[in-house]
Amino acid sequence: MKQILILLSLFLVLTTAHAQLTLSLKDATLGSGSYLRPEMPSQLKWKDNEHYVMVKKNTLVEVDIKTDKQTDLLSLAELNTALTAKEIKETKAFPAFTFIGESQIWFYASDKLVILNLKDKSVSSIDHVKEAGNEDFNIETNTIAYTLKNNLYISSNQGNEQITNDSNPHIINGTSVHRNEFGISKGTFWSPSGNQLAFYHMDETMVGDYPLVDFMAREAELNNVKYPMAGMTSHEVKLGIYNRSSKQLVYMKTGEPKDHYLTNISWSPDEKSIFIAELNCAQNHLKLNQYDASSGNLIETVLEEKDEKYVEPSHPILFSKADPSKFYFQSNRDGFNHVYSCSLNNGQLTQITNGDWEVTELLGFDKDEKQLFFEATKESPIERHVYLINVQSGKTSRLTEKSGTHSGILSPDKKNLIDYWTSTSVPGIVDLIAIKDGHTKTIYEAPNTLKDYQLGENSVFTIKAADNTTDLYCRMIKPSNFDPTKKYPVIVYVYGGPHAQLVNKTWHNDARWWQYYMAEKGYIAFTVDSRGSTNRGKAFENAIHRQLGVVETADQMKGIEYLKSLPFIDTDRIGVHGWSYGGFMTLNLMLKQPETFKVGVAGGPVVDWSMYEVMYGERYMDTPEENPEGYKNSNMLNYADKLQGKLMLIHGVQDQTVVMQHSIQFLKKCIDLNKQVDFFVYPTHEHNVRGNDRLHLMEKITNYFLENL
Amino acid sequence: MKQILILLSLFLVLTTAHAQLTLSLKDATLGSGSYLRPEMPSQLKWKDNEHYVMVKKNTLVEVDIKTDKQTDLLSLAELNTALTAKEIKETKAFPAFTFIGESQIWFYASDKLVILNLKDKSVSSIDHVKEAGNEDFNIETNTIAYTLKNNLYISSNQGNEQITNDSNPHIINGTSVHRNEFGISKGTFWSPSGNQLAFYHMDETMVGDYPLVDFMAREAELNNVKYPMAGMTSHEVKLGIYNRSSKQLVYMKTGEPKDHYLTNISWSPDEKSIFIAELNCAQNHLKLNQYDASSGNLIETVLEEKDEKYVEPSHPILFSKADPSKFYFQSNRDGFNHVYSCSLNNGQLTQITNGDWEVTELLGFDKDEKQLFFEATKESPIERHVYLINVQSGKTSRLTEKSGTHSGILSPDKKNLIDYWTSTSVPGIVDLIAIKDGHTKTIYEAPNTLKDYQLGENSVFTIKAADNTTDLYCRMIKPSNFDPTKKYPVIVYVYGGPHAQLVNKTWHNDARWWQYYMAEKGYIAFTVDSRGSTNRGKAFENAIHRQLGVVETADQMKGIEYLKSLPFIDTDRIGVHGWSYGGFMTLNLMLKQPETFKVGVAGGPVVDWSMYEVMYGERYMDTPEENPEGYKNSNMLNYADKLQGKLMLIHGVQDQTVVMQHSIQFLKKCIDLNKQVDFFVYPTHEHNVRGNDRLHLMEKITNYFLENL
Repeated sequence: MKQILILLSLFLVLTTAHAQLTLSLKDATLGSGSYLRPEMPSQLKWKDNEHYVMVKKNTLVEVDIKTDKQTDLLSLAELNTALTAKEIKETKAFPAFTFIGESQIWFYASDKLVILNLKDKSVSSIDHVKEAGNEDFNIETNTIAYTLKNNLYISSNQGNEQITNDSNPHIINGTSVHRNEFGISKGTFWSPSGNQLAFYHMDETMVGDYPLVDFMAREAELNNVKYPMAGMTSHEVKLGIYNRSSKQLVYMKTGEPKDHYLTNISWSPDEKSIFIAELNCAQNHLKLNQYDASSGNLIETVLEEKDEKYVEPSHPILFSKADPSKFYFQSNRDGFNHVYSCSLNNGQLTQITNGDWEVTELLGFDKDEKQLFFEATKESPIERHVYLINVQSGKTSRLTEKSGTHSGILSPDKKNLIDYWTSTSVPGIVDLIAIKDGHTKTIYEAPNTLKDYQLGENSVFTIKAADNTTDLYCRMIKPSNFDPTKKYPVIVYVYGGPHAQLVNKTWHNDARWWQYYMAEKGYIAFTVDSRGSTNRGKAFENAIHRQLGVVETADQMKGIEYLKSLPFIDTDRIGVHGWSYGGFMTLNLMLKQPETFKVGVAGGPVVDWSMYEVMYGERYMDTPEENPEGYKNSNMLNYADKLQGKLMLIHGVQDQTVVMQHSIQFLKKCIDLNKQVDFFVYPTHEHNVRGNDRLHLMEKITNYFLENL
Repeated sequence: MKQILILLSLFLVLTTAHAQLTLSLKDATLGSGSYLRPEMPSQLKWKDNEHYVMVKKNTLVEVDIKTDKQTDLLSLAELNTALTAKEIKETKAFPAFTFIGESQIWFYASDKLVILNLKDKSVSSIDHVKEAGNEDFNIETNTIAYTLKNNLYISSNQGNEQITNDSNPHIINGTSVHRNEFGISKGTFWSPSGNQLAFYHMDETMVGDYPLVDFMAREAELNNVKYPMAGMTSHEVKLGIYNRSSKQLVYMKTGEPKDHYLTNISWSPDEKSIFIAELNCAQNHLKLNQYDASSGNLIETVLEEKDEKYVEPSHPILFSKADPSKFYFQSNRDGFNHVYSCSLNNGQLTQITNGDWEVTELLGFDKDEKQLFFEATKESPIERHVYLINVQSGKTSRLTEKSGTHSGILSPDKKNLIDYWTSTSVPGIVDLIAIKDGHTKTIYEAPNTLKDYQLGENSVFTIKAADNTTDLYCRMIKPSNFDPTKKYPVIVYVYGGPHAQLVNKTWHNDARWWQYYMAEKGYIAFTVDSRGSTNRGKAFENAIHRQLGVVETADQMKGIEYLKSLPFIDTDRIGVHGWSYGGFMTLNLMLKQPETFKVGVAGGPVVDWSMYEVMYGERYMDTPEENPEGYKNSNMLNYADKLQGKLMLIHGVQDQTVVMQHSIQFLKKCIDLNKQVDFFVYPTHEHNVRGNDRLHLMEKITNYFLENL
C-alpha cells in the first residue's frame, strides 16, 4: 500500500512536472493557428474507391484502404522536374490540387493552370494572365474563366476570348455579388459540358463612393469603395450566359425591380435552362425561376417561399442524376433546415429529412439515389454527425459514433466514408468508416499540442433563454488552480448574431485560447450562444428580427443571472468582449446593463444599423424607413448616455465591413456627453486584425481587462 | 506680542477660510477662458487726444482723461433704432467697431457694412453678400473688398465690381497665402487713397489633394484639402493690382522661380509702387523688391538679407510720414529683432534700436518722427515694456514702470499712453500714462477671479541650457499643501518650438490653469522654454535648425536635471505632455529619454517632418532631399523601438495643420514593433480641441496621468 502511494505521488509529481507549461499570450493568439495547431493530413481525398491520397512531406502518397499500404505517387521534386521541363516556374510546396479522373491532377503554378498526368508525369498547361482573379477551371473543356479588372475572359489551348467589354470600372463581371451574402462566393458558373458560362454582371455606378484613406502613404491616399448602406440605393445584378459555340452572350430577363437578389445559380443537366433563386429586395419572398439559357426568357417559377420575417436562400438546387426532371433543395420552411425533392414535371415537393434539428451539409446520394448522406445537428446542436437516410422509408442511421463534430468525405462508390472529427479532448482524428457495417478504423490521430500546458477546466452546459423555454449552450473555463472558496471576476466573450455558433463540441469546446489565457490570469471565461445564433432552427435565429440586440441582450443576461447564482463569482467584476456583431453586443451590454458590466472591449462594432450594408442589414432590420423604431432602439448612439464602466472601442481603419464611422460617431457622442471612452485603431487592417498584429491587439485587450477589471 | 500672534492667527484662519475653493477641471479648462477670465474693458480705444472710449454694458462710453467724466455716446438700443430705420437687422451685442475720424464709426451688421454718425445717429450702409469672406474696408473710399468662393470683388455705394474671374476653384484670389506663415494674415491691400487694390493670387492646382474624411455624415464624406508637404510641389503666388480708375488689372512681374514666397506687402505713399518682401524657396535670401504698380515692372531691389540658416520676414515696411523717401523696417540681422530706417534715395540703412533684446511691437512715432515708441524685452525676456527712443541720440526711456507684461495704445497726439498690463499677481490693469512726466493713473483694475481658490506656489526662475551658457526660463507650480519632506511626481508641460514662449510674467506667469489643477492632485507642474522658442534672439531660436528636437530635448533634460537635484521630487515618476510641436517634443522625450519619462501624452504631434507643410517645415529643416540625416534623426518613427513608458497620442480627425497620418503612422510602427501605445481622436476637431470638448480632452489627459503616473 505504501509503495502504491509512493508510486502515485511520483506519478502526480510527474504529471505536474509534465503539465507545467503556461500558455503565453503569443501561444494563445498566434500559436493556435500555427505552431500549436494540431497537424492534420494535408489534402486528404479519395482517388478511387480503393485508395485515398494525402500530401505528406511534400509528396503525394496513395493509401490502399484494405492493406494500408502507402505508395508515393509524386514528389515535389518530380513535380518540379515536370514543370521546368515545360518552362514553368518551380513551386516551393506541393500545390493544392484536384483530381481529373484517377490519373490526372490539376493545379495553379505561377500564371499557369497545369494538368499533370500522375503516370507518365507529363504536363500540359493553360496560360492566364498574372493579374487575373476569380479563376474557374472547367475540366470538361480544359478552359479557365477568369476576370481581369472588371471584365470576364476565358482561356484554353485554343486561346483567349474576352466575354465582356465594360469600360466603366464600376460595372463588374464574373465576380461574387451581393457582398457574399446568400451563400454566394463566386461569379462564374460553367454548364455541365463546359460549353456555356453563366456569370454575374454587377452595376455599381448608382452606389455612392465611400472614402477609405490609406494613412500609410507618404501623403495619405484616397481609396473609394462602393458601400451601399441599409435603405440606400444598392447595386444591380444581372446573370449573363455566354455560349462558346454560338459566341452569343445573353442576359437572363430577370426584369424589374432591379434591386432584387439573384442567388444560388444552377444549370439544368441538359444545359438548356438555368435556375436562379431570386429574392425580392425586402428579402421575404423567394422565387426559384427557370430561364431559357439561349433566349434568357423566363420559363417558369418552379418554387416560391415566403416568410413574414425573411427568407435566406443559401444553397443552390441539386439535380438528380437518376431523374433529370427532379432536383433536391434545402429549406427551413418547416422551421429547420431540411432536404426536399421537387419534380419539374408536376412541381410536387417531398420532404426527405425531418425533425427539430438542422441538416448542415449534403454529402451526396448513392447511385440510384435511394440513400442520402448528410451532416446534421440531430444528436445535439453542438455536435455534428454523418447520417444516412433511406429516402423512401425515412429510416435514418448515424454513421459516426463518437460524441463530437464530424465531417465526412464519401468514397466515389459511397461505400466508405472518411470521417474528420474532433471533440472536447480530441484535437483531430481521421477515421475510415465502412458504410455497410460501420466498421471504423482510425487512420490518423493528431497529437495533442497542448498536452504539456496547464489549462483550466472547460465545461459546456445549458441554461434557459429569457423566454424560460429555449435551451442555450454555455461554455465556462475556470483557472487551472480554481478554488471554489474564492471569488473570481468574469470575462464574457460574446458574438450573439446570425451565422455563428461559439459553443461547439470541437477541441476544447471551440474556446478561443485567449479564454484559457485569461482564466490563468484569474478570470472565469464565459460564453453563451443566445437566440439569434445559428444551427438552432428558424425561430431561434429570427427571434431578433427588427430589433437587433434586444433578445440577445436578454439571453446574455440569463447567462449573467446564472453566473451570479454561483458562489465563486465576484459579481462586481464582470467584463465583456466581442468583435463585429460581438462588438455591437458588447456595447448593448455595457450600455443597457451598466450596473452589471464594469469593463468592455468592443472590436469593429456596429453602432447604428443604418450605417451597415444593405443586404445583411435589411434582412434583419428592414429599411430605416420601414422600421424607424427598431433602428432607434438598436442604435448605440442613443444609449451612450448610460455608459458607466470602462469601455474601449477598437477599429481597423480599412474596415470595409463595419466601416470605422461606427466607432468614430460613438466617440463623438461620448465626447458630446462628456463621457470618457477609450479607442484604438489598426491602421492597415480591415474588419479583423489578422497576422502577427493580432498579438498586439490581444495584448491591448488583455491589458485593458487587467488594468480595469 | 501675544495679541499680535492672535491677530496673525485669526488672519491666517480667515485667509484659509477665504481661499477654500478648489479649482475644478472645468474651471481650469473652460473657466479660464470664460466665466473665470478677469474682465477687461471692452473696445477701449482713443477717440481723440482728450478722450478714450469703451463699451460698458453694451453702451459706448466716452471718458475725459482729465476729469474722468464719463458720457454715454451710443447705447445698443440707439444703435438698433438707427439700424432698423434703415431696415438693417438688429444686433444683440454692441458690435466691434472702428472710428472714422472722431464722430463716425463703422462696423459689420448682418450682410452690411454700416457707417454710423455718433452725433445725429444717422446710418449709411454698403451691401456685401452673405457668403463673402475676407472683408477689407477702405475708409477713404467707403469701399469693401471681399471674396466670394475663389474670386475677389469690391463693393461700394457705386455698386459691385468683380475683380477676378477664375473658374478653377484651386486658383484663389484675395485670401491669405503661404499658410499664414511670414506674418501673412490677409490677402488684400488697399493703396493709401483707396484707388488701387493689391491682392494675392494663389494657384494651388499643382498641389495634390489631401483627403480629409467627415465621419459624422450619414455616409462618410470626403473633403479634399491642399496640403503641400516639405519637399513637395507647393502653390504659386502672384500679386495683382487693380486700379479702380483705369479698371486695369496688372500682375507684378515677380518672375521665376515661382515657388518663392511673396510676403509683407506695402504701398509707397504716392501709390506709384508697391513693395514685396520676396523670400526664395530655400528661405535664406530675402529681397525687398519695389514694383511699378501700373506696369508691374520691377523697379529695384531695395534691400537684401541672407542668412545661412533662414530669414523669416514678419513685418511689412512702414513709410515715414515725415519723409516719403524713407521707410522703417524690422530685422534680426544683428541677432535680435530691431528697428531700422532706410532711405530710398541712397539705400542708406540706420539702425534705430540696438541691444541684446528684441523689439516685439512698433507702436508709432511722434509727429516729426524724432521719437519712436515700441514694446520690447529689454527689461527681461519674460516681461514686455513700452519704451520711447530718441531716434537721433538713441536715448531710450521706459514708459511702463511695474514689472510685468505691458501693451500700449498711444493717443493720436502721442502725448498719452493707455497701458494694458498684467503680472504674476495682477489679473489685468489699465493705466493711463502721461508721456511727458510718466504720471500714471489707473483707470481700470480687473478683479482677481481666483482670489478664493486654493492655488499652489508658482515660481519663475532660470537654469542653464545644455550649452551651459544660455539662461532658460522655467516655471514651477507646487501643490498648495506642499510639504518639502515629501516626494512629488512631476508633469512637464512642453512646447519648445519656434514662435512660442510659455513662461511669461503675466497673470500666474502664463501657466495653464490645468497645471494648478494637477498640482492640487499632487504633482509638481514644470515648464521650461528651451532654445528654439521665441523672443530670445536669432541664435537662441535657430539653434534647432536642420535638427528639430535635438537641442530642445537637451535643454528639456537640463530642466529634468534641475528637478532631480531637488529633494522633493520623485524621480521615478516624471510625465510629459504637449500639443503640436509640444506633441513632437513629448515623443522626443518619451522615446529618447525612456529611462526618465514614465508617462506621456502627445497631442496633435508631428511625427515625421517630411509629412509637415512646406513653408514652416523647410524653414527649419530644409527639404528631405537636402537634409536626409536631419529628417531621419527628427523622425519619431525611428525611435518607436525605444518606447518604454505609457504613451498616449491624441489627434483631431480634421487636423489640417498636423495631419492625422502622423499619429496613425506612429501607431502602425508601434504595432509592427509590438509596442503598446494608446490613442484617442476628436472626430470633428482640427489641430486643437476647442470649445466644450476641451473639458473632455483634459479629463482624458488628466486620467491618463492619474492612472499611470
